[in-house]
Amino acid sequence: MSSNRRVLCLCVSDQIESWCASFKKMAPDLDLRLWPEAPDAGRPFYVAAWNPPPGFFSGLPAPKAVFALGAGIDRLLKRDDLPVPEIPLIRLIDAGMAQQMVEYALAGVLRFQRNLDLYESQQAAGHWQPQPARSAADTRVTVLGLGRIGGVVATTLTALGYHVSGWSRQAAQLSGVDCRAGAEALEGLLGETDILVNILPSTPATRGLLNRSRLSCLPVGAGVINAGRGDQLDLGALFDLLDTGHLRGAVLDVFPEEPLRDDSSLWRHPKLLITPHVAANTLPEPSVRQVVENIRRLEAGEPVEGLVDRQLGY
Amino acid sequence: MSSNRRVLCLCVSDQIESWCASFKKMAPDLDLRLWPEAPDAGRPFYVAAWNPPPGFFSGLPAPKAVFALGAGIDRLLKRDDLPVPEIPLIRLIDAGMAQQMVEYALAGVLRFQRNLDLYESQQAAGHWQPQPARSAADTRVTVLGLGRIGGVVATTLTALGYHVSGWSRQAAQLSGVDCRAGAEALEGLLGETDILVNILPSTPATRGLLNRSRLSCLPVGAGVINAGRGDQLDLGALFDLLDTGHLRGAVLDVFPEEPLRDDSSLWRHPKLLITPHVAANTLPEPSVRQVVENIRRLEAGEPVEGLVDRQLGY
Repeated sequence: MSSNRRVLCLCVSDQIESWCASFKKMAPDLDLRLWPEAPDAGRPFYVAAWNPPPGFFSGLPAPKAVFALGAGIDRLLKRDDLPVPEIPLIRLIDAGMAQQMVEYALAGVLRFQRNLDLYESQQAAGHWQPQPARSAADTRVTVLGLGRIGGVVATTLTALGYHVSGWSRQAAQLSGVDCRAGAEALEGLLGETDILVNILPSTPATRGLLNRSRLSCLPVGAGVINAGRGDQLDLGALFDLLDTGHLRGAVLDVFPEEPLRDDSSLWRHPKLLITPHVAANTLPEPSVRQVVENIRRLEAGEPVEGLVDRQLGY
Repeated sequence: MSSNRRVLCLCVSDQIESWCASFKKMAPDLDLRLWPEAPDAGRPFYVAAWNPPPGFFSGLPAPKAVFALGAGIDRLLKRDDLPVPEIPLIRLIDAGMAQQMVEYALAGVLRFQRNLDLYESQQAAGHWQPQPARSAADTRVTVLGLGRIGGVVATTLTALGYHVSGWSRQAAQLSGVDCRAGAEALEGLLGETDILVNILPSTPATRGLLNRSRLSCLPVGAGVINAGRGDQLDLGALFDLLDTGHLRGAVLDVFPEEPLRDDSSLWRHPKLLITPHVAANTLPEPSVRQVVENIRRLEAGEPVEGLVDRQLGY
């Protein structure tokens, strides 16, 4: 084993074989150490990790860079063993997640637009009753978060005929999408939204964003899809607005505490569709391709894709 | 009222105001008679009708042409009061239904591909369990029926990344879609299908098409979406294949008898999603536009769009 091969310390709990096979295929020169196997003392190394156990980083010398094997790095940023800010923290950008998020958002949008929520209730009651149809063009969908994932969600919904708006921290430009930016623009936009799709990252600026006051801006009958993070949506306010009939229903993939406990009352709420944080999974192959390319760029002194701004939180 | 204005006898039971308003807007010269108001004796007239009551045609003199305000004309062709074959029978082509059918098919495809059926069961049981994901590219969708509606369904699913095949009576060519034709090609194709989307018209050649033997060709775990007609799918065979676990589930919009009775056992089947024949509704505005254009063509001696071959049944 040549000592000038790059060392990568890999820490994953899921699909381990697939991660290793992808690294061996796409970076055969990489000296791969599957955690808890440690890198050799004194040799520089990179870390690629998804949800590493507590104390993971304390047990290692300082890496050259940390690759987070996910798009959301809110949990990672809350750790007290994270390497110092001078060490680059790099997250995944898209890596196959945009396509999955398009599918999830679309399933939620169709559920409300095409009345599948009502038809499920009618099926349970044995009741045949066609509901008034709403065309895609008459369905105002608002996507919160217009990064590499949200941008694809917004433009795909536009291509399918929906009336799409988007909202982000910084102004975005997307063909066919009414893009707005900044906190002051949000409430007005919510007032013109039939279906809200949240895929924002969890950051200091987005935690608690969908509070009672903002949710109340949505028109009567609006539906909510949350595939961002559980800490962005006030569930108590959501349930109140569902109970009064102000909101029509919600599709929830993320929760303040995951997994949801078996005895959570959320499971039994008739206006919720609950999925277990599966809207967009990390896929080993495109993720490894991105990590390997970013290692090449770091070694060549080029800018990497997905460098995290720890202050902004993404 | 000038006697050389074209007379149109309109018979609809739903959205009457919208139909009349669309005709008045798009064909202000048309002398519109809303059934049961009859056309003047001796003046030539057209009929535009959706589900006219029994005996409707017997009570009228022979029209110049009959416009069926739907894409499926199987019920109309079974009537014993239908005007003689020399009188053109013209159905709707697309008229806003392709977009709706895309949405319905997509909702069904996403339900199976993204495990929403399983997550609904898990939600009912209060159980958090991510299921293995299947990418769109690894999901083989077969669309039965590649006319103006099915063609759009197949190409849209292709654009969204699915592996799409299509089947029709006559060979079709659609970019990115593996198109096959003829009865002998069907069983092999079903064997390579993860999700089957039926939107065929009901004709002598398609009634009973999805029988026990053909449904059994589907791989274990396949899902079925029926938005064609209820007489094409053997429900008894479907339920047997669902009960043995050979098939995963079904999304049904059409039934041998509609509406489904309140006490039908179908409502309570745990592997079914039932909708009340709403996959693609007739929309007054695009439908009227098509009827008015076809009247113009008939008067000008040009070929019309949607002329029914009564032998083929569509």
